[in-house]
Amino acid sequence: MTDPRPFNFSAGPATLPEPVLRQVAAEMLDWQGSGMSVMEMSHRGREFISIYERAEADLRELLAVPTNFHILFMQGGGLGENAFLPLNLSRGGKVDVVVTGSWSRKSAAEARRYADVQIAAEGNGRAIPPGWQLRGDAAYVHVCTNETIDGVEFHELPDLAALGSDAPLVIDCSSHLLSRPIDWRRVGLAFGGAQKNIGPAGLTLVFVRDDLLGHALDICPSAFNYATVAAAQSMYNTPPTFAIYVAGLVFQWLKGFEYAGKRGLAAIEQRNIDKAALLYAALDSSALYENRVDVSCRSRMNVPFFLKDESLNDRFLADAKAAGLLQLKGHKSVGGMRASLYNAMPLEGAQALVSFMQDFEARHG
Amino acid sequence: MTDPRPFNFSAGPATLPEPVLRQVAAEMLDWQGSGMSVMEMSHRGREFISIYERAEADLRELLAVPTNFHILFMQGGGLGENAFLPLNLSRGGKVDVVVTGSWSRKSAAEARRYADVQIAAEGNGRAIPPGWQLRGDAAYVHVCTNETIDGVEFHELPDLAALGSDAPLVIDCSSHLLSRPIDWRRVGLAFGGAQKNIGPAGLTLVFVRDDLLGHALDICPSAFNYATVAAAQSMYNTPPTFAIYVAGLVFQWLKGFEYAGKRGLAAIEQRNIDKAALLYAALDSSALYENRVDVSCRSRMNVPFFLKDESLNDRFLADAKAAGLLQLKGHKSVGGMRASLYNAMPLEGAQALVSFMQDFEARHG
Repeated sequence: MTDPRPFNFSAGPATLPEPVLRQVAAEMLDWQGSGMSVMEMSHRGREFISIYERAEADLRELLAVPTNFHILFMQGGGLGENAFLPLNLSRGGKVDVVVTGSWSRKSAAEARRYADVQIAAEGNGRAIPPGWQLRGDAAYVHVCTNETIDGVEFHELPDLAALGSDAPLVIDCSSHLLSRPIDWRRVGLAFGGAQKNIGPAGLTLVFVRDDLLGHALDICPSAFNYATVAAAQSMYNTPPTFAIYVAGLVFQWLKGFEYAGKRGLAAIEQRNIDKAALLYAALDSSALYENRVDVSCRSRMNVPFFLKDESLNDRFLADAKAAGLLQLKGHKSVGGMRASLYNAMPLEGAQALVSFMQDFEARHG
Repeated sequence: MTDPRPFNFSAGPATLPEPVLRQVAAEMLDWQGSGMSVMEMSHRGREFISIYERAEADLRELLAVPTNFHILFMQGGGLGENAFLPLNLSRGGKVDVVVTGSWSRKSAAEARRYADVQIAAEGNGRAIPPGWQLRGDAAYVHVCTNETIDGVEFHELPDLAALGSDAPLVIDCSSHLLSRPIDWRRVGLAFGGAQKNIGPAGLTLVFVRDDLLGHALDICPSAFNYATVAAAQSMYNTPPTFAIYVAGLVFQWLKGFEYAGKRGLAAIEQRNIDKAALLYAALDSSALYENRVDVSCRSRMNVPFFLKDESLNDRFLADAKAAGLLQLKGHKSVGGMRASLYNAMPLEGAQALVSFMQDFEARHG
């Protein structure tokens, strides 16, 4: 393929950096002279161990993960973690959840199987709710820091200590992980599926502070006991080796990424800010489109929007596809449109989307 | 790469068919004109749904899976299933396990978290034990039909009814799944990780008879509740989409595979029989090598063997690698060597191994 690829706005699995895909293709039959595809390597062999160790080190460097955090490469996605979290951390006690949208609501429901769950605050999917009721003896406080479906993002992590709680903060950061720094001083555990900014679906990353290990309930499956996984360097179970390899290439790509005079995570964050600013400005100046999320917590990654005339939805999607703008349909629970602007989406993708939208509005608005 | 690739005897992740790897590489940036890599597709989009549906249909056809069985595409591997099985099927009651080696022993230990587990019979890792003590009211009987580490395989599935039990038979068939037919009349549930005969690690296949759904314990994580996964066509959680795609290509390759005048599963089974016969004949006629498994249950897939002079082990492995024969080291719990002869291993691979072994013996025996 020599033509430029279309821009893919899928909410996940999602667009990946083209240089990474090219390298994956080039190495498919023979990884670095080993005579094997990465898919064919024993996870215990020195070739794969070297891939894993570099991926772990690069991820730790990119996000400045402190040494007292373990990085676990797991399976099961966000919905799996919704169970594994309380199985590992709740001790069967109290869990406080702040509901900001669909994902945190699901997390709360699943945690009820294992713990005494309280909704500390509940938003309407358009803003972060105020007035959190935190219990002093909660095992942890769960927050989804970017609601993929609703498009609500925390631009600063909550400071639980300032809110009078000394419970550890758990963040589900699936859909903005690696799009910006994480303030680890405020976090006890962070988790996210890979299929947004990182790599193929089927890989879940868990960052867990070491004092939170070792408290799993007896009913926690061994393969998902964080202490077991940590002790085995994520090799207790056969890990999703190929997904880890692709993720590792994405980490290498990101380390070398340059934009606006910056490099690495700072560069990608700046580009993410710029892409989102472009799109929100277009939405806010339009008579046809609208985004309903409070300006203070609009997501840089997932931008849901609606056509005020919904009878134009199908035509919008068809015309967008014809213009090389893919997977813009909104989540079925919300309707409308959604543009996901993950790390691998270039600035030109956001520009092309805005141009198309303005042209579409001129024709149909 | 134009030279022939080395032969890779890894026990898993393991060698894959070269035409599949070539197609994966060729489609990496643009799957069939979609403008996307399969890694980048929403699992809800029509492109990926078509990949999933074809993979499911091809697998069902290859193994002649009856219509009253669901095929689930899951995550978590064999060690995950060791927990998910009793969570879904035991109802907190009795589970009988036949121990034939390392994997069935692990399964029994994990099931104890959730059920009253009895070892119905225990072998020495070299034979299938006789005299199974089956409880009439067991929720299921668990058997590992190919012990990857020990090299013990059931060449006929046990007939529980003939043994006086009407409990469903559960088979862990990870390391010989798709290498031979399955007699579904004797099976209630079968499961296996993909990373042997099927595709990348991180995908687990579960075949479950519909009357066994709907009895999960409340503490079963939703993402691993078989009824939930079945009702959502394996899309409750974001599935490991890329691994499913690769598996689907392997299914297509297998459907067209021809050998000894046969086609499809019958052809691959015949080639597996021939490869294993070659290697066992060489072992049995050697003064240097030995396989210790009873002839009646020697695995076609995983052939552990020992050098009677173990001081030659390192030289054997180094010379083998130099001869283009990779990953022959035995599992750390057993020692010695292990040659895995999965579907993608050509007859020439087994022949090359035997020639090398005979030459090595002539030099060092």
